[in-house]
Amino acid sequence: MEKITSSKNEQIKQIIKLKRKHDRIKFNSYLLESWHLVYEALKSNARIKKILTTPKQFQLHSDQLDHFQDIVLISDEVSKKLGSTLTPQGIFAIVQLPKTQHINPNATSGGWLLLDQIQDPGNIGTMVRTADAIGLSGVVFGSGTASRFNPKVLRAMQGSQFHLHLIEADLEQWIDGFKNQQVPVYGTELNPNAVDFRDVHPKSNYALIMGNEGNGIQKQYLSQTNLNLYIPIKGQAESFNVAIAAGILMFQLQK
Amino acid sequence: MEKITSSKNEQIKQIIKLKRKHDRIKFNSYLLESWHLVYEALKSNARIKKILTTPKQFQLHSDQLDHFQDIVLISDEVSKKLGSTLTPQGIFAIVQLPKTQHINPNATSGGWLLLDQIQDPGNIGTMVRTADAIGLSGVVFGSGTASRFNPKVLRAMQGSQFHLHLIEADLEQWIDGFKNQQVPVYGTELNPNAVDFRDVHPKSNYALIMGNEGNGIQKQYLSQTNLNLYIPIKGQAESFNVAIAAGILMFQLQK
Repeated sequence: MEKITSSKNEQIKQIIKLKRKHDRIKFNSYLLESWHLVYEALKSNARIKKILTTPKQFQLHSDQLDHFQDIVLISDEVSKKLGSTLTPQGIFAIVQLPKTQHINPNATSGGWLLLDQIQDPGNIGTMVRTADAIGLSGVVFGSGTASRFNPKVLRAMQGSQFHLHLIEADLEQWIDGFKNQQVPVYGTELNPNAVDFRDVHPKSNYALIMGNEGNGIQKQYLSQTNLNLYIPIKGQAESFNVAIAAGILMFQLQK
Repeated sequence: MEKITSSKNEQIKQIIKLKRKHDRIKFNSYLLESWHLVYEALKSNARIKKILTTPKQFQLHSDQLDHFQDIVLISDEVSKKLGSTLTPQGIFAIVQLPKTQHINPNATSGGWLLLDQIQDPGNIGTMVRTADAIGLSGVVFGSGTASRFNPKVLRAMQGSQFHLHLIEADLEQWIDGFKNQQVPVYGTELNPNAVDFRDVHPKSNYALIMGNEGNGIQKQYLSQTNLNLYIPIKGQAESFNVAIAAGILMFQLQK
């Protein structure tokens, strides 16, 4: 079994580059961190190129890793260099970027979450995890939304990328697609004159758009929705965090 | 008006120390960042010792800052050193730690959120902001929960600390207090055998306990609740993020 003990090793230097979008595309790979995510990738037959693990993590999970060929043992020093937290667990996988999923926006089913220029990776990952838990079919990442392979997005998703469709696409096309199918499209507005979300009954098919943390949904999309929803605020906060709002809304909308 | 242009200035070095709990107590102060939070502090008559601002931010908010005496103009370099993001807005306030609020756990009113060993500052701050938006009376930080003066907690709270009670206390005492008043105490469990939260009707007075991200609520508290609630999971995710779960539950419980 190959061993790497120095964080100055050329292979490690290259793997660290995968934290940047440009290099993920160049090397057609992204980096997963922690056993929970590596195990989700193994279970869902993602194309894992290599697993890097400390001897301790290898021992802990040897049963599940036994049939996997490309394992590299790494030192704690290397693990710290690869990890995105102060005390990384010590296990990583280099995974091939999944092939683009071609889903026809005119032939969808179920609930869909559309992200319009969401900035914060933690918010994005949490929304994907919540959409998964609530049983939506997929999430569409509109332009200006952080990448689904961003290490912080990956951490917050907690493996949900293996459970539902994640699409990078033009939101305009998708909104048109839902409308062609007569699937209702809901926007969200920080405006008490919008419709109280509790007045909408759960649906089998729907789309929910969530907008940028500071600016909300872009005007050209807001004007194309069937209804714009509002969560009543009883206290003094000006607004809900976008991921919290998305959670409350999806839970109400999903049949 | 005093001006500081070098990030090596002794005063700046001391202010940076306020990011650590030990030094916040030593200097009886904490650091707020961004105009939104500085303005919330001004509005709520928090004891602001000093405002540090770039000339640009000073100009933008001169109307509201005009009557404030202790303003220090800082350079962009100093602002970057003080800020907790890559591109700080450029305005900060040094605020005196608020006096401990003595609230009798045997004489509460409204909804209360109890945090049991929550780790992630973003989750904690977001839960406080959500409790504020939903109209709860306060949040109790149990031991092992990150500090409410942690810079990342402050950022996620978005000023909600000025709108509702934040208490650092022993959860045991507070749970006893609610029970003495016959106020229902709800726990949360990742267990489909717990009660579906939608079966509980909104309440004027209640307490909701949220537990650690990995381990949930400590057993000694779970056994003392009136009911333990569960949010049904329809998809494949193992759980909800703790702040999302808190948001969905508080929205249901709060009358």
